Order: sequence, then structure tokens, then C-alpha cells
Amino acid sequence: MSHMDLALGIDIGGTNTALGYFDRSGRCLGATSIPTRSDQPPEACILRLHAAAQALLATLPGAPRLAGIGVGAPNGNYYRGTIENPPNLSWGQVDLRGALSGYWAGLPIAVTNDANAAAFGELLFGAGQGLHDFMVITLGTGLGTGIVVNGQLVHGHSGFAGELGHCIVEPGGRPCGCGLRGCLETYASATGLARTARELLAAGPATPGGLDPEALSAQQICAAALAGDPIAREAFRITGTILGRKLADAVALTSPEAIFLFGGLAKAGELILEPTRRALDENLFHVFRGTVQVLPSGVPEGHAAVLGAAALIWKELDPSCVNRSDT
Amino acid sequence: MSHMDLALGIDIGGTNTALGYFDRSGRCLGATSIPTRSDQPPEACILRLHAAAQALLATLPGAPRLAGIGVGAPNGNYYRGTIENPPNLSWGQVDLRGALSGYWAGLPIAVTNDANAAAFGELLFGAGQGLHDFMVITLGTGLGTGIVVNGQLVHGHSGFAGELGHCIVEPGGRPCGCGLRGCLETYASATGLARTARELLAAGPATPGGLDPEALSAQQICAAALAGDPIAREAFRITGTILGRKLADAVALTSPEAIFLFGGLAKAGELILEPTRRALDENLFHVFRGTVQVLPSGVPEGHAAVLGAAALIWKELDPSCVNRSDT
Repeated sequence: MSHMDLALGIDIGGTNTALGYFDRSGRCLGATSIPTRSDQPPEACILRLHAAAQALLATLPGAPRLAGIGVGAPNGNYYRGTIENPPNLSWGQVDLRGALSGYWAGLPIAVTNDANAAAFGELLFGAGQGLHDFMVITLGTGLGTGIVVNGQLVHGHSGFAGELGHCIVEPGGRPCGCGLRGCLETYASATGLARTARELLAAGPATPGGLDPEALSAQQICAAALAGDPIAREAFRITGTILGRKLADAVALTSPEAIFLFGGLAKAGELILEPTRRALDENLFHVFRGTVQVLPSGVPEGHAAVLGAAALIWKELDPSCVNRSDT
Repeated sequence: MSHMDLALGIDIGGTNTALGYFDRSGRCLGATSIPTRSDQPPEACILRLHAAAQALLATLPGAPRLAGIGVGAPNGNYYRGTIENPPNLSWGQVDLRGALSGYWAGLPIAVTNDANAAAFGELLFGAGQGLHDFMVITLGTGLGTGIVVNGQLVHGHSGFAGELGHCIVEPGGRPCGCGLRGCLETYASATGLARTARELLAAGPATPGGLDPEALSAQQICAAALAGDPIAREAFRITGTILGRKLADAVALTSPEAIFLFGGLAKAGELILEPTRRALDENLFHVFRGTVQVLPSGVPEGHAAVLGAAALIWKELDPSCVNRSDT
């Protein structure tokens, strides 16, 4: 056969939308990204997305055939193919599968939560290979959760399973984009870290040469913490402690073998891993102690969600590509 | 074939151990119970358990054949066949499968958490029939959790999955038998309800003809609440509110279609269901609203865990007896 089959993986984020073409083995043949521009209607993004995908496809050698499209998106619903009122993307309800079908008529299209897509990438091509029970926590603008149980991705009855980010960790605490207060993601995310650092700066004495509260990003806090800045280190300690405490609840429910941290904040390494592990251990029911590891993701940063989204459609086309475990 | 195959289901509890013989359709052919006597070594209980099971078997007509044994027990480990240091049973670590094999040599024996057994009974013979994603919460001396995801019981990597009872709801709160403080089961259980009622009685003015704090059981509080006693009703309201708040976290993770409340406390009906549902709804991420029901268990009170334990061994002997769903 002269034509290679490819899957298009798409990861829609609050700021950027990444896309890439992958073969069945997870090899990336080409990838790019476009700004999401969530201030514009979703149709505008999908129009630009289609143009970028077609332009990229034209550059690939050997006239490959597009077999299907997998999409990870915030509040992506696996059953309905929709995006439904995500807190970090002001699009409301979008029939994503329907809109994409307008451009790619007749092609199989699968939609899921962006963190589920990342977990699926981890399961097939990352550190989750061979594991039956694990979790992926994406730490970006918000906090996403992808859960694998018995070797299968958990979508739940609603199709929205995996929303640890919207569990309340501080009753009456920080207001969240979802309408609740004190959600985990208002503390354990890039946004939450920056806010914690700002609060620490406002509460303490000014440190000469220290962080500038006016222009404070997670990236800057990470750089400052690595350079030894005490406020930045304290912000990471607080963030990890709140995250670890909530992970103890998650472990008590599905008892994963590993929890992979993924995304911008996870790049801080031990700065976030150490306090997370310690708080997890301190709050864990004793039977689970020593049964779960908190690790950085095993999928290359730029690729996990796009790769996972592509893998999702391979699985839809051929369920046997994923080895199921028997309980 | 003239001999009927039966499974022996056993549910080891902190106070009583129930046992029964079931056929493949879930029909109970005989059941009884013995006191657990956790003050004695586990070997003493297993000796009496064997004697009771043999005596019961001898009363069954048609010389049935015992095909296997399923056991639900607190901190029962599915993979190792052990009981491991349950907070409400002072036996430490027990090789349960090994000990039972001493009496029933060569018979297949499966062990799991008592709440998992209840969930399995609910899945095969109760209100969970046909559901892919649900949860069973057992409200007794402690709080147990059995989780079904994609039509399968969740054991997790450790074999201990489903311990919502030992998630912390009140940092630094009530001491729990597990060594942590503020665990859900110290509030949402028969014991927790009684403690809440005692605290309310101690804090308020004495009510003539009201509850007697010296002799206060969950059963009495239930009777008083049904008779309109305001303190007893307030104790149920507080219990349900704390439970519902934590259930919101559980729903955000695995997104069940239904949560079945089971056990002594669940018999209070709307007294516990109403505040639980309200607190669940108030703390739930909006995408899950209206997707989950909180209902009483659909398995007859005395039988769920024993029946579920028996079903577990039927499934071990023939996995196809449970219809798996495809994700």
C-alpha cells in the first residue's frame, strides 16, 4: 500500500491550539499550533484550524491519507462530541464534532477532555505503558485530570469524569471561573501559583531584587525559585501541599499506581514534586502508603495531549490497539 | 446434573459475620450469622465460621456442591486475599484466603473489601443492574465505598480502592481509628452520627423528654428524628451535609450515574438523603449537575454484601457472567 494512514490530533487550549499528524505507532509526521483567540467565536478558530491543518498536510511527503481526527478540549464531552462551558474558555456550549464535520465531511472524529487525551497519550506512548491504574494531572492555566482504571480511560456516566480541579479544597476560598469557590485549580495551577506568590509578596516585607508582583508569571516564579528566592520557593511549597492533600482523596478512591504531573508547572521538578509527595503521604490512609508514585509525565511536553487525541481516534477505529486488562 | 452448584458468600463485619449460600442467579438457599468477636484472634472466628457454614450446608436439600467462596471484609485485599489492619477490626494483618483454605482445601476463594462486595451485589442483582458507572456507600460503624467504572469493580493498583471514608473532611478534626484526623467516616457513619448528636446535646440546653446523651445509638437518633426531635434532625442534617460535600469530590473524579447509600444509616431515608443531595449539588462542578442520583440501595438490607461476595466468586469462576461494557 503506497498511502500511509495518519490521524490528526488537536489540543484546544485557552491560549493556543496545537495540532499534529501521527501514524499508528505514535510517530509525529508534522505539528504546528495556532492561537486559540477565545475572544472570537469558536467558528473563527475552527476555520483557522482547518486552514493550518490543510497547509501542514500539504507539506507531508507521500500523499498520506487522513483516517480520523481526535480532539482534546477543556470540558470536552466524549459522548456528545461537544465542549460545554469550560471555565477557562469563554465559548459556552460548542458542537465541536459537528463543526469539524463541516470541514472534514465523513471522517471519524472523537472528542474528549484535554486531560483525558493526555492520559491516553501517556497510556499508549508514555510512562503509563503497561500500567493498569494511573492518573495524569495537567497543571496549566487550570488543573485537568485524566484517569485510567483497569487499563481503560474513565469517561464516567456524564462523559466529563476527571475534574479534580473543581473539587473544593478551601470552602469559601478563591473564586473559580466555574462559579464555585476554593476549587483546587485556583491554588494548584500556573494561575494559582502566581496568585499565591502575589499574596506572599503583599503580606511580607519588600525583598530587594526579588519578584515583581506587577508582572508575575508561573515561569518567572519557577526561575526565581530555582535561583533560590524564598518567596518563590514558599509559593511552590504551598501549591504542592494543597495539591498533595487533594491527591490523597483521589488515591483513596481509585488507588492508582502512579500520578503523572504534566504541563508548565510540572517543569519545576522537585520544587513541586517534593511538597506534593509529602502532603500526599501525610494525608493518605495507611493501606495506600508506598503504593503510589508521583512522577513527571513521560511524554514530551509539546506532544502529550495532541498525541493522546490522535491515539483516541486510532482506538475508535480499532479498539484492539489498546490492550485491555481483565479485572 | 443432579447436584446444584452453590457459592458461599461471607461478609465479615466489626460486630457480626454474615454468611449464606447462593446459586448463580443470586437466589439465597440459606443464610445465617455469627458474632465476629474481634476481641478474640481471627482464627477463633474462622473456626466458628466454618462450623456454622457446614451446619447450614447440611440443612440444604439436594446435596448441593460448593463451587467456591467469596468474602467481603474491611480492608480486604483482592489481590493478596488478606485483611490488612482495618480501623474497625483489631486483627491486624490476616491471611484470610490462607486461613479459609485450611478448612476448605482446594476450593476457589476470593476476598475483597466489604463495600466492594456490596457494590458487586448491587451490580449483578440490585439497582446497579445495567449501569456502567456507579458507587455504593455503606454507612455502618464506618463508611465503605465500592466503585464501578465501565461496568467493572475498581480494585486499583493496591487492591484497596474505594476508601472515601478515610478522606479528610475536617483537617485536625475528629481522631479516626486509622490514625488520621477528620476522616469522613468519623462524621458520616452510625458512630459519627451519634457523636454529632452528643456534641449537639452538650452544646444546647437540655430538652425535656429529648435524647439521652448517655445511651445514644444511631438507631435511637433515627427514631427520635422520625418523631420530630430537633436535635436528632439537626444531627442528620449535619451528617448528610458533610457526606454530600465529599460525594461532590467523588463525582468529579469518576462521574457515576448513581450513588447508592446502604446500611443502617441509609434506613433513615430522606432524613439523610435530602441533606446529602443538597450539599452534593451545592458543591458540584456545573457539568455534573443533574447527571447523578443519590438513592437507597436496591439490594435487601441483610443480603447485599453476602450476595455480592458470593457473586464475586461466580465471576472468578466464569468472567462472562458479568457483561463488560466497551468504553
